[in-house]
Amino acid sequence: MRRTIGVQQVEDIALGAAVLGTGGGGDPYIGRLMATQAIQDCGPVELVTVDEMADDDWSVCIAMMGAPTVMVEKIPGGKEAEHAFRAVESYLGRPIRFLYSIEAGGINSTIPITLAAQLRMPLLDLDGMGRAFPEVQMVTHSLFGITATPFTMADEKGNSAVLSTIDNRWMETFARSIAVNMGATAHIAAYAASGKQQKEAAVLGTISLAETIGREIRAARSAHVDVVERICAVTNGFIVFHGKIVDVQRRTVAGFARGEALLEGIGEDTGQKMTIQFQNENLIAQRDGEVVVSVPDLITMVEDETGEPVTTEGLRYGYRVKVLGIPCHPHWRIPKGLEVVGPRYFGYNIDYVPVEQRVKSLSRSK
Amino acid sequence: MRRTIGVQQVEDIALGAAVLGTGGGGDPYIGRLMATQAIQDCGPVELVTVDEMADDDWSVCIAMMGAPTVMVEKIPGGKEAEHAFRAVESYLGRPIRFLYSIEAGGINSTIPITLAAQLRMPLLDLDGMGRAFPEVQMVTHSLFGITATPFTMADEKGNSAVLSTIDNRWMETFARSIAVNMGATAHIAAYAASGKQQKEAAVLGTISLAETIGREIRAARSAHVDVVERICAVTNGFIVFHGKIVDVQRRTVAGFARGEALLEGIGEDTGQKMTIQFQNENLIAQRDGEVVVSVPDLITMVEDETGEPVTTEGLRYGYRVKVLGIPCHPHWRIPKGLEVVGPRYFGYNIDYVPVEQRVKSLSRSK
Repeated sequence: MRRTIGVQQVEDIALGAAVLGTGGGGDPYIGRLMATQAIQDCGPVELVTVDEMADDDWSVCIAMMGAPTVMVEKIPGGKEAEHAFRAVESYLGRPIRFLYSIEAGGINSTIPITLAAQLRMPLLDLDGMGRAFPEVQMVTHSLFGITATPFTMADEKGNSAVLSTIDNRWMETFARSIAVNMGATAHIAAYAASGKQQKEAAVLGTISLAETIGREIRAARSAHVDVVERICAVTNGFIVFHGKIVDVQRRTVAGFARGEALLEGIGEDTGQKMTIQFQNENLIAQRDGEVVVSVPDLITMVEDETGEPVTTEGLRYGYRVKVLGIPCHPHWRIPKGLEVVGPRYFGYNIDYVPVEQRVKSLSRSK
Repeated sequence: MRRTIGVQQVEDIALGAAVLGTGGGGDPYIGRLMATQAIQDCGPVELVTVDEMADDDWSVCIAMMGAPTVMVEKIPGGKEAEHAFRAVESYLGRPIRFLYSIEAGGINSTIPITLAAQLRMPLLDLDGMGRAFPEVQMVTHSLFGITATPFTMADEKGNSAVLSTIDNRWMETFARSIAVNMGATAHIAAYAASGKQQKEAAVLGTISLAETIGREIRAARSAHVDVVERICAVTNGFIVFHGKIVDVQRRTVAGFARGEALLEGIGEDTGQKMTIQFQNENLIAQRDGEVVVSVPDLITMVEDETGEPVTTEGLRYGYRVKVLGIPCHPHWRIPKGLEVVGPRYFGYNIDYVPVEQRVKSLSRSK
């Protein structure tokens, strides 16, 4: 099925992807401006489902890698994404006909739209996470033996790298240090995948889901109906807490922004407390000491009135938020998936239990 | 002119290159074993002068990059150098007919011999320094606008990288962090150069000079004549001090092994002191506070009886050494060269004065 992404859809996708971004990915503002400009200059982007790909058609994901805080200050030069894309094509020696998003959330939901508009290429309605994660190997493609190699990187100065590694975990190591050398952010192209591979490995429908979430938020705001309930309806999510942010602690550990937010309940959660631990993305939500949502399920804070997603950088004392728990894609729930992105990978000594099971034991009604 | 490098020549080249290595490059033992093995398996290597290259013939340098101390403990897998070489060829899309050495000293004098034997390719009698230096951009090729790009790297695990940068200083930054990720050492291929470029930019004759130095040391030892005098004769060097090492200080600053050796004079230098500052290689020699040799001229310590070169890692209390000052290649003495490798680049606030002028004011006779 084919649809088009115009200026309104970019706005909806960016907003919806921020919900799926679980606090990570940074402010999507610059990315939205770039995609809007590209669409105004070159026309709308065709969004296609994976059925449009022949088994031997090839696709590649386009993204930015590095520190979100820097991404919004160091404006890209404009040609980096294309350089990275061309380098993959040249390495593989075959034409690449489709672009796709590595993750939902922040700038990476719009970077591939920008390049798709500029190169007049279709964008696939899928991604590699169904949410946002901090590391290169954390894509469902890794679970199906798809290699990140060739992994190409380009900066705004004109430097570039083509990396080839024995596994996707090594790619994270190599690419991370090059991204740092490139000034904390770089454009990348990677995870070239055939139609056959995408049908098996990708999280399908992520772009249209993001667009639906964004559109529903917009519609609910205009109609003055409960925005957060609409988000839950389209994501199969649960409201696991309603509270006010009363404390935020941040520290930098091993190159990541780790931290913890403390919330005091309001409304029907008055008298209860929630802590949310994050590492770029929100990872664990505990209610009075009991885990109610953990990675790989999604934990998203949204402003209780407007439904506006709150990123981990945006956490401030006094914000009144609802905390959502949203089931992750089934690929992440198998043992191999939990090895890559389960709570233990991030250093938390707890078992993963799907959010829909955890909320059953919650005393609060949905 | 063509000559061949057999097992005896490998030994002489490694010994002579250690004299030109000015204390850097680490222990050449493993590299010598590898080259000897390759020659025994595949036959001797042809050593050719640059006149053998047509102007549009292409050459590439092969080297190891990283921490010398690790190089002697982490034995290469055997295919890394060839991987790096093939990656340059494939990037350039043209055959490369000659190999060359990036520097004299330590393992990098023998790494290209090993690959030349294995691939049955000729080795050029030249290098990019005429000595050893610590950083990627410190080759005479940089002074003539020759780019390090494509710079390819491979490790023993099977990881690889192809880097392309806007200048050779950026290449140092990128390649250094990849080398660290590869486990502190990596095989590299870089600085592809045509025959026309080599004739203009390279330090010609370095391999045969190293071989001559090694052969002279060996001959002088057998003949029981003064070894150090023979080294000076073939390098145009000067003995600037005769002393005993009484103190060695080392510290790690910005990823480099910086340090200082203190020598107390013996023989005709009795009562005098010399300090030698090093940063991987020896950089500044001061005699009673007065600079007598500085980069880019060569400062080499050799054992006073055997003429055996002493590396900066090998410095020990009680060693009796002669300190040699050897004029560097004229390419380094022009302002552009001194910008790249002069005392100020290394953080010493002194002007460069050629060693042959400095020694004129020395009170000691040669």
